[in-house]
Amino acid sequence: MIEQTQDDASLQSLVEDFFRHRFSTDNPLITEAVRRMLDAGGKRIRPRVTLLAAEACGGDPVDHLALAAYMELIHVATLIHDDVVDRAETRRGINATAIDYGNRVSVLAGDYLFAWIFKNVTANYPAPVPHILSSTLAEICDGEVLQLRSLGNLELSLEDYVEIVGKKTASLFAASAECGALQGGASPLRAAALREFGLLYGIAFQMNDDLIDVTADERSVGKPVGNDLRERKMTIPLICALQGGDGEFRRRVERFYAVGDPSEIPGLLDAIRARGGVSRTKEQIEHHVERAKRALAPFGSAPARAALSHLADALLER
Amino acid sequence: MIEQTQDDASLQSLVEDFFRHRFSTDNPLITEAVRRMLDAGGKRIRPRVTLLAAEACGGDPVDHLALAAYMELIHVATLIHDDVVDRAETRRGINATAIDYGNRVSVLAGDYLFAWIFKNVTANYPAPVPHILSSTLAEICDGEVLQLRSLGNLELSLEDYVEIVGKKTASLFAASAECGALQGGASPLRAAALREFGLLYGIAFQMNDDLIDVTADERSVGKPVGNDLRERKMTIPLICALQGGDGEFRRRVERFYAVGDPSEIPGLLDAIRARGGVSRTKEQIEHHVERAKRALAPFGSAPARAALSHLADALLER
Repeated sequence: MIEQTQDDASLQSLVEDFFRHRFSTDNPLITEAVRRMLDAGGKRIRPRVTLLAAEACGGDPVDHLALAAYMELIHVATLIHDDVVDRAETRRGINATAIDYGNRVSVLAGDYLFAWIFKNVTANYPAPVPHILSSTLAEICDGEVLQLRSLGNLELSLEDYVEIVGKKTASLFAASAECGALQGGASPLRAAALREFGLLYGIAFQMNDDLIDVTADERSVGKPVGNDLRERKMTIPLICALQGGDGEFRRRVERFYAVGDPSEIPGLLDAIRARGGVSRTKEQIEHHVERAKRALAPFGSAPARAALSHLADALLER
Repeated sequence: MIEQTQDDASLQSLVEDFFRHRFSTDNPLITEAVRRMLDAGGKRIRPRVTLLAAEACGGDPVDHLALAAYMELIHVATLIHDDVVDRAETRRGINATAIDYGNRVSVLAGDYLFAWIFKNVTANYPAPVPHILSSTLAEICDGEVLQLRSLGNLELSLEDYVEIVGKKTASLFAASAECGALQGGASPLRAAALREFGLLYGIAFQMNDDLIDVTADERSVGKPVGNDLRERKMTIPLICALQGGDGEFRRRVERFYAVGDPSEIPGLLDAIRARGGVSRTKEQIEHHVERAKRALAPFGSAPARAALSHLADALLER
């Protein structure tokens, strides 16, 4: 187990090395925008999934660092574009010039980064890797638009929610696992099993992210808790709390979404928790983690299987 | 010549058919955003370059309609993202909510469209087509960032300008010609010749676009003349006018860029014209059109060569 952890740490630092030394563009402003986003942190879980999937299929993770790094960079590019979206929310009333200049660069830097990734992937990886990655980007965007359209929609079912996060978040985990598997030499069966793992893990990952916004301490998360509520996102804790059928609670959420008084947020979070929003979300996370781990059955006792299971179990620790 | 024009018109309508019947996504909001942009017009010159390039190399244009359509869709995706950029300029002081919702959808619709194109191209076209298209998108973004950084920079040389528009605008014409050539069965020599044509034609195309903003009648262009000046863009007529070395004119432009009083625009346009900005731009366009046509030498008396030359000559008609 200690060995495994050291391996993990050294692979992680190789991925960071890739970002530092092998990511650069001719355009200093774009390079800077991407680096700033990379330096802002991130647990590099997508690259880890790629490297472990390659290893599980008999590959040497060190041979697949670039591919692993591209998975994180696709994530970074979507974050850069999210930034355009989110910053707009806090823009009202403040000097728009500097921020709009930022918006312009953010749109272009994100586009450039997508293009840079595809340029490298089409030059260096055989079919179907380039196709998987471009299909994944289409799914992410589709999921984000679906989420946008579902903002404030109290009718959203758990099924719809799973479809949205499956596209928006889990598709990239699925691709990270599948591409790692393919490049590691996987049989079609094993590549499909790892894709399934990535998808289920990714859904649980997003559910856990939603949960943190309801349960965590602001200081430990580094961003305001209740942010999803403020953005009128239909998160799983809210969906589960609404499923309880409490009409008064429902009307309270409706009023908040109509008026948006931020002082209501702590009380609403309490109400979500009191109506089983946290406990039912935890059940859903457990359910998806279990299914993700079951998808790894074809890998028998391979150490990388244990590491992937461990990654999934880490979502249950909170 | 009449035959040629009919062919052109029927190919154009086949391209439009492709947009109408073969472009659709699972996401109605994205499909709508893209269709709105397609319906807003456009001369579909990039697809025409692709189809003529394929024909010049012995291919049947009808076999390459999808590829031609992708060239227009890459252009449309960059316009959708430009829209995010440009709308920000007129946003100040007005209700941000509706516009920001538009910005969100614009960013995602553009991303989705890039992804959709790459998804199709990686599924249906052999190397190096997918790589050419992703490299081209990287160049476009690089060029746009360079242009952004050069806003209001009165030191920008004609050489720098040509580098920027070569990336921002001409790279897609170069790719349209090269990919059409490759899919039409071109030898490497002919594919390179058509790429060169596309690049030089594209530079002349952008120069002509800059010229229109200085010379045209607002009603005929459908947007305000002098718009580039308003955005502090360093266009070729302005660069040529500044090259005259008139210190008073230079200080006047500097003052306008510092203060931005729109009532100054008509006078500035007159001053640009009076200092040879228009005539010298026309010389540069002629020069690039001539070079573009010379690049077609390997095609002898092929009808598609005449059609491409004709397309280039059309830039000289104003």
